[in-house]
Amino acid sequence: MMHNDRNENETAKSLDIVANNIYHGTQDHMDGAWQAEQSDFARSLNHSNFLVTETNAQTLGWDSAGQFPPYDGQMRLDVYSYLASGANMVEYWHWHSIHAGQETYWKGVLSHDLEPNRAYAEVSKTAHELQKIGPQLVDLKIKNQVAILYSVDSDNGINFMPYERDGERGWTPGKAGDSYGNQIVQLHRSLYNANVGADFVFPDTANLAEQLSPYKLLIVPSLYVADDALLKTISDYVQNGGHVLMTFKSGFTNENSAVRWQRAPGPLREAAGFNYQEFSNLEHPLALKGDPYHTGDKNQVSDWAEFLQLEHAQALAYYDHPFFGKWPAITRNHYGSGELTYEGTQLSDTLQSKIVLEALKSAGLTTPDQQLPSAVHVKHGTNRDGKQLHYYLNYSSDEQTIQYPYAAGKDLLTDATIAANQQITLKPWDLAIVEEVK
Amino acid sequence: MMHNDRNENETAKSLDIVANNIYHGTQDHMDGAWQAEQSDFARSLNHSNFLVTETNAQTLGWDSAGQFPPYDGQMRLDVYSYLASGANMVEYWHWHSIHAGQETYWKGVLSHDLEPNRAYAEVSKTAHELQKIGPQLVDLKIKNQVAILYSVDSDNGINFMPYERDGERGWTPGKAGDSYGNQIVQLHRSLYNANVGADFVFPDTANLAEQLSPYKLLIVPSLYVADDALLKTISDYVQNGGHVLMTFKSGFTNENSAVRWQRAPGPLREAAGFNYQEFSNLEHPLALKGDPYHTGDKNQVSDWAEFLQLEHAQALAYYDHPFFGKWPAITRNHYGSGELTYEGTQLSDTLQSKIVLEALKSAGLTTPDQQLPSAVHVKHGTNRDGKQLHYYLNYSSDEQTIQYPYAAGKDLLTDATIAANQQITLKPWDLAIVEEVK
Amino acid sequence: MMHNDRNENETAKSLDIVANNIYHGTQDHMDGAWQAEQSDFARSLNHSNFLVTETNAQTLGWDSAGQFPPYDGQMRLDVYSYLASGANMVEYWHWHSIHAGQETYWKGVLSHDLEPNRAYAEVSKTAHELQKIGPQLVDLKIKNQVAILYSVDSDNGINFMPYERDGERGWTPGKAGDSYGNQIVQLHRSLYNANVGADFVFPDTANLAEQLSPYKLLIVPSLYVADDALLKTISDYVQNGGHVLMTFKSGFTNENSAVRWQRAPGPLREAAGFNYQEFSNLEHPLALKGDPYHTGDKNQVSDWAEFLQLEHAQALAYYDHPFFGKWPAITRNHYGSGELTYEGTQLSDTLQSKIVLEALKSAGLTTPDQQLPSAVHVKHGTNRDGKQLHYYLNYSSDEQTIQYPYAAGKDLLTDATIAANQQITLKPWDLAIVEEVK
Repeated sequence: MMHNDRNENETAKSLDIVANNIYHGTQDHMDGAWQAEQSDFARSLNHSNFLVTETNAQTLGWDSAGQFPPYDGQMRLDVYSYLASGANMVEYWHWHSIHAGQETYWKGVLSHDLEPNRAYAEVSKTAHELQKIGPQLVDLKIKNQVAILYSVDSDNGINFMPYERDGERGWTPGKAGDSYGNQIVQLHRSLYNANVGADFVFPDTANLAEQLSPYKLLIVPSLYVADDALLKTISDYVQNGGHVLMTFKSGFTNENSAVRWQRAPGPLREAAGFNYQEFSNLEHPLALKGDPYHTGDKNQVSDWAEFLQLEHAQALAYYDHPFFGKWPAITRNHYGSGELTYEGTQLSDTLQSKIVLEALKSAGLTTPDQQLPSAVHVKHGTNRDGKQLHYYLNYSSDEQTIQYPYAAGKDLLTDATIAANQQITLKPWDLAIVEEVK
Repeated sequence: MMHNDRNENETAKSLDIVANNIYHGTQDHMDGAWQAEQSDFARSLNHSNFLVTETNAQTLGWDSAGQFPPYDGQMRLDVYSYLASGANMVEYWHWHSIHAGQETYWKGVLSHDLEPNRAYAEVSKTAHELQKIGPQLVDLKIKNQVAILYSVDSDNGINFMPYERDGERGWTPGKAGDSYGNQIVQLHRSLYNANVGADFVFPDTANLAEQLSPYKLLIVPSLYVADDALLKTISDYVQNGGHVLMTFKSGFTNENSAVRWQRAPGPLREAAGFNYQEFSNLEHPLALKGDPYHTGDKNQVSDWAEFLQLEHAQALAYYDHPFFGKWPAITRNHYGSGELTYEGTQLSDTLQSKIVLEALKSAGLTTPDQQLPSAVHVKHGTNRDGKQLHYYLNYSSDEQTIQYPYAAGKDLLTDATIAANQQITLKPWDLAIVEEVK
Repeated sequence: MMHNDRNENETAKSLDIVANNIYHGTQDHMDGAWQAEQSDFARSLNHSNFLVTETNAQTLGWDSAGQFPPYDGQMRLDVYSYLASGANMVEYWHWHSIHAGQETYWKGVLSHDLEPNRAYAEVSKTAHELQKIGPQLVDLKIKNQVAILYSVDSDNGINFMPYERDGERGWTPGKAGDSYGNQIVQLHRSLYNANVGADFVFPDTANLAEQLSPYKLLIVPSLYVADDALLKTISDYVQNGGHVLMTFKSGFTNENSAVRWQRAPGPLREAAGFNYQEFSNLEHPLALKGDPYHTGDKNQVSDWAEFLQLEHAQALAYYDHPFFGKWPAITRNHYGSGELTYEGTQLSDTLQSKIVLEALKSAGLTTPDQQLPSAVHVKHGTNRDGKQLHYYLNYSSDEQTIQYPYAAGKDLLTDATIAANQQITLKPWDLAIVEEVK
């Protein structure tokens, strides 16, 4: 998914139900972020539940150099991660390991010996649980207040004229060298770190303005390729009270990837509250002057710096550099009854999480979910009985304790009663699914 | 030699006399290990003396970026290294340097000026020595008690589904990325460090069981591709009192490189005393728990870990890791009147030397040769007169002193009398050849 | 220019006026050295003033990952750098930035918005200055006493049989992996650091001996490919009183890139005062014994070492190594009434600057210009009125103060009177152009 030689949103229009093959990191690389992003993406295409038609069984690989079987509990946690994001089915590639050929080491639930094993035991346990509680989990309805605008044209346009040479930041399977994809990963992960769910929205949607209106916050990664109408839709969204968090290069080229011959950022200039004529790559990462977000050695921006000339916007942060320091790195502009926050440079993951959190606060979107331990993630939805579900998932090898802030309910996995504000202890790679009593 | 697109053992059957072109490291990279391995390999093919038809003259290279002429004494020591391993001739590529073309910088004994030089002087000195003592050195008979099983099919099979991505460990000319070849190098070098000679044996040998029977220790690097008969021969060898040191992935596929559909390690399960259903690459090197071999910062295993489920075998060492620590890294099994030591992971060079030494002890193969300074290596054989020869070779720029533990004799190079237990001092890159008086 | 698939000197013979497209580092990478080298090269081809037909406007790049717009003042300083080296015109690629295609980010003076901007303001300021003082600057006559022999055949020959594997040292646009080009850069930069101007001379020049005779010092980088006549011309130049600084591999092959079958360095042996039969790459950099040039951690030589056997030459420095230390690294030979200094190894940039300075002293070429702060460079010439011009250029973001040692004059940019020995303060990336009153 999100490959840049296809247009998923266009494809989805001819599908009855969307499916996604989601392969992710395991062992010390499983934190649920990739599962969440890919699930949010799949669910957003046709605005409904989806299928996971392939995911990690024991190990992946077209050789035997990338074999990383999951730790105990990870396969089960994986299934519930998908269900908590709206999946209606999880299927493995594949049932048993193949004895020859290219995918000899793309191992199934069973090993080559075709006997029960550790993976089989865990899949079996999970399946028996689902046999019991599946009807209370399936068809989960998820309602988010944050959207991410995903532009496949911008991905293509930036890949044609990339602003970084080797691209990769962090662990993003199958996305090597894809700067736009890495921005999507970083921004979605910033929301995920804050336990805020997100939908994806797409430029090539007939009623985009209407679709945007219920969202409180719209995140716009480098919208490099866009026609005037799309930029006007975003401006109007701000003017009508929406909050936008937008990153550099947005609005720079038109729908044909030709640079606009107006002052940048073109039709976004009013809403953004600045203009620029120049930009520079950053040969070395720079600090933001005065460490304004208290991020210590993560106070780093890199790769790109637009020389933003303020008109109505205010500067939130400046570069700590004799030359680049003349221009702000991050700005905010009040426009109509909304506001637009703009990042003229690539933020470190830590800075990005801070800015996203600030934008969430500004949009009135903070909840107790931001107080959870970093290894625990929560997802919410409404099941077929109209009851509220809260999944608490522990992505770590350590036991974690959380305080449950919602209405009283019971843990569907254990049948234990859960009172409001009660403490819940989660074993390593384990979870609780609280169904509110109502 | 040992290229994986050929089968040397098959080829050797049609040769009257085996020849090998042996190019090796020089200057600070000459320790004689590669010369010993390649010589042992050549000698083992037809079980007789062999020729070195090419070796380093002044320098190698298809450009002028890898020119490393030998230090004083290295060319002469090189010749005796081969003779001590059973060579009957050493020939250079080539007599004089070529003035143009691809091998302009693959320099001969003479430089482009065609005049006598440092290399010529050393070759001439060596040749005059051989003129005198050659008849006492030629046709050396070498009898070893350790064999290494070399499977070209396993080399090919592992290269098709490699378990490490960039392969190279240590300095192995022409073997980049060849994991199987690197195992051969590491295991042979461990024997070489202990001054224990080895022969190579080959799966495609008619009377393999018979050929194995005189050996006390059989070393089996990752025997990834093997038919049932070969695995039975090895099992029987153990049952009948043989000692085997075997590494991971052995027995995993059949003779067609198809994974067996029995529990691994298939037909070896009885002799090995364990089974496994899972394995993992190691993302980072791990320590063995409790540093059982006292190897400090060399207490490292890497790349691969089989999840060995013990049946009759005992665990010799465990991984120091919360997940992998459930399974042993090294096991030993008594089977019939022999024993099989198994490494389920890739050991560091230092750990491998320790395990090999332990296996030698267990097989009753230790001698005073293990007490020599690390830069000095000894090789033994019987000459045409039936007299025992002991070569003591100093692979270093420092003078070395050793104690001679064998029967009285004389140094053929100096005519000096050597008494039993006498000290012998070896100049840098120099040697002594003691012929027992008898 | 200097590409190794063309022969610039041959091409120049059919040109009325030589032009060069000179792209250089900006921001923290602009020190004027590349501009000086490329200008000296262009001016030397037809021994006359030249045109700069392309140079950096705002930014370069076939993607947006190498955008480095100049600091304030750098575009203006760039123009005067060329004029000070004999350019009669400076032209940009290009007037305005292109809105689509491969060179979208190869930005012109104007940005894509086609409006005045920071770059335009600086170009405009410079152009208005030139409108006023251009007639006093154009057609500058430059007379140097040092020449560098540039052999395109040697560049090709070395690239076919390179002596280093990844070649690049320092920042040399478009010259990755080109050892010969890197030597040219290092040697020219050593002269530039000393504020000594240089011309290039070419082997394929009819009257080369005559052309060389006015020069006091001839620098000969690795003259790997040369016919006997060329080597005799250099020998004769020394014998007749010339000073030569020559680097390793010179004279090694004949005009067909075939190694000579005489003792190296062939026909240069008499003038060089040594011979050699062997050479080695250096696996690791070595120090010169006793740090003879007081260069501390820059006391490093690398890549190559010829085993120079002295005949009449004296050793200036030896390797600090038990084996290589037997042979000198740098030699000097008095031959006839001249002298030849030879580097048998690749010197660090700092060592090279020391050796070049020593050669300049020995040739009687030192002046007050060697006393300037390192960021300030001076260039001299005679204008159309026969008046002497002295350009003082500050390549740094700091203010610099210099003492003006020449005859009284006035600064053409400010009309300020400048007395002999007066102090002149130069703002960041600014300059003074002193015209002597006479």
